[in-house]
Amino acid sequence: MAHALRLARRGLGNVWPNPAVGCVLIREGRVVGRGWTQPGGRPHAERVALAQAGPLAHGATAYVTLEPCAHHGRTSPCAEALVEAGISRVVTAHTDPDPRVAGRGHAILRAAGIEVTEGIGETEARHMQSGFLMRVQRGRPFLTLKLATSFDGRIATANGESQWITGPAARIHSHGLRLVHDAVMVGGGTARADRPSLNVRGMGAVRQPVRVIVSNGPIPDLPPEGPDFGPLWQMAGPVDDVMKELAQAGITRVFCEGGGQLAAGLLRAGLVDQLVGYTAGLILGGDSRPAIGSLDMQRLADGARFRLVETRRVGEDLFHRWRRAGQ
Amino acid sequence: MAHALRLARRGLGNVWPNPAVGCVLIREGRVVGRGWTQPGGRPHAERVALAQAGPLAHGATAYVTLEPCAHHGRTSPCAEALVEAGISRVVTAHTDPDPRVAGRGHAILRAAGIEVTEGIGETEARHMQSGFLMRVQRGRPFLTLKLATSFDGRIATANGESQWITGPAARIHSHGLRLVHDAVMVGGGTARADRPSLNVRGMGAVRQPVRVIVSNGPIPDLPPEGPDFGPLWQMAGPVDDVMKELAQAGITRVFCEGGGQLAAGLLRAGLVDQLVGYTAGLILGGDSRPAIGSLDMQRLADGARFRLVETRRVGEDLFHRWRRAGQ
Repeated sequence: MAHALRLARRGLGNVWPNPAVGCVLIREGRVVGRGWTQPGGRPHAERVALAQAGPLAHGATAYVTLEPCAHHGRTSPCAEALVEAGISRVVTAHTDPDPRVAGRGHAILRAAGIEVTEGIGETEARHMQSGFLMRVQRGRPFLTLKLATSFDGRIATANGESQWITGPAARIHSHGLRLVHDAVMVGGGTARADRPSLNVRGMGAVRQPVRVIVSNGPIPDLPPEGPDFGPLWQMAGPVDDVMKELAQAGITRVFCEGGGQLAAGLLRAGLVDQLVGYTAGLILGGDSRPAIGSLDMQRLADGARFRLVETRRVGEDLFHRWRRAGQ
Repeated sequence: MAHALRLARRGLGNVWPNPAVGCVLIREGRVVGRGWTQPGGRPHAERVALAQAGPLAHGATAYVTLEPCAHHGRTSPCAEALVEAGISRVVTAHTDPDPRVAGRGHAILRAAGIEVTEGIGETEARHMQSGFLMRVQRGRPFLTLKLATSFDGRIATANGESQWITGPAARIHSHGLRLVHDAVMVGGGTARADRPSLNVRGMGAVRQPVRVIVSNGPIPDLPPEGPDFGPLWQMAGPVDDVMKELAQAGITRVFCEGGGQLAAGLLRAGLVDQLVGYTAGLILGGDSRPAIGSLDMQRLADGARFRLVETRRVGEDLFHRWRRAGQ
């Protein structure tokens, strides 16, 4: 299952509206097939692994990071494909909460006489699939908020100079994070001031993330969708509604890169699931521009707590990642 | 020398106005004496190691993290003591810049026919002795600025609630940092608002750091000097003068714990050599209280850059330490 989870990770940011799933087929102790959800969400991981194994799938055990699908879409369900291939045992991480599946995949397998073991690697799988799970279960995507700041949490001098607080390694690293999210989001002020590219550069041919500008006002001319730029969506209204619309459009993972007003709105609404910080060894002082707008927080206990997941040096800067406590 | 440097470290915060020195005596491949500068600065490391070795010092090699002293104080110079003990070779990290020594220690040894090797482990030794070196060479102590803040660099909500942003492990850890500094310093505003203890607790019987309050106004009643509290010094005037006075009083390492105005003054004057951050997984927003006062910085290039030395988790919080670039 650890192997399947590593394969699944390759799909993050690349397979929306589908979940990023991994599948490994093992027969007589040898790997005979490996698959992960392909760009755009199809083929599913099981299909890729079965195609690779061919006749060797007969009698094999399938490790899948999510319950195989049970609904007829463009193709027949993966649960049926596993049965037809003669798989003898299926191990899954957890049940797919999608109402079209919701246990029916497991049921199809068992009805065909296949031994099914559920719940293996469930915590890790739920963690990786949190965008898909939140979209299905809570109607909004998983949200990462990125802040690249000075040591004292500032993003520009008082007169607006902001390039560059953090270094080139941090910028490259953050492109890697854009890559594993479905959409990159900024507020209208940031879009107008910085005209950000919001794409992934220097990482080969990739599925570019959707560019989301949250703004009631006009937004600047940005490059049209193409090989180097994802779709450009302007959205407006309260952040709760924006997130709901994004989920309805199929987005499972959003990477918000500011600005301070949008970030404050997301925090006030309790919509931030992960914080990513790039901190530079530079102090700008209390008269410089803060990374986050006003939160009107009266008591410390009112703020969401995040727990530290990872910290390390990236180039000259400090990288740190936190997940919402309790998630 | 690595062993001697580790011994030297034990004296940090404990030996002002003297440098924290380590000494290891080796005879025929075996350690026959180890010493480090004792609390208050005497006996010197060489004396301790020689006393431990006794007659075994004869013919031994001495590794010392600083040139042995050459001046007559309360006792005869260490260079002479090494000669009298029959040491055959002395290896040192670097020359003592103290004008009373400044090469004369090495000269005494060589004049007595002892083989002297200088410059071994010099970078590490200069780093550890930076407080002593800055006091002698630049007339001010080494200064560490500590900030315990939210993810966005804030120290309290808009209405002043500040307990607790960082957790108990960070507070204990910061007591360990107080311990390796000669003095703990805060501004008058912080002294009046928080009545901080500025002592080291829970670490056994230690030499308590000097408590320095930088304030032109009145300061609150704080506990008198005793086993649990170091001397209490109120100082006023520009921060450059305060630092100069501290150096004249023998202080080599200062740990500044705020507040924002004093920290801003020290940063503007270019007096901060090391930054220590404890960052909590909590965002307080742009309307909460910043950790640093106004710096009136027009350009990013005007700010001092610090390089990341260390980062890791301490309890629930992120700990990170930076040294002034170029030092």
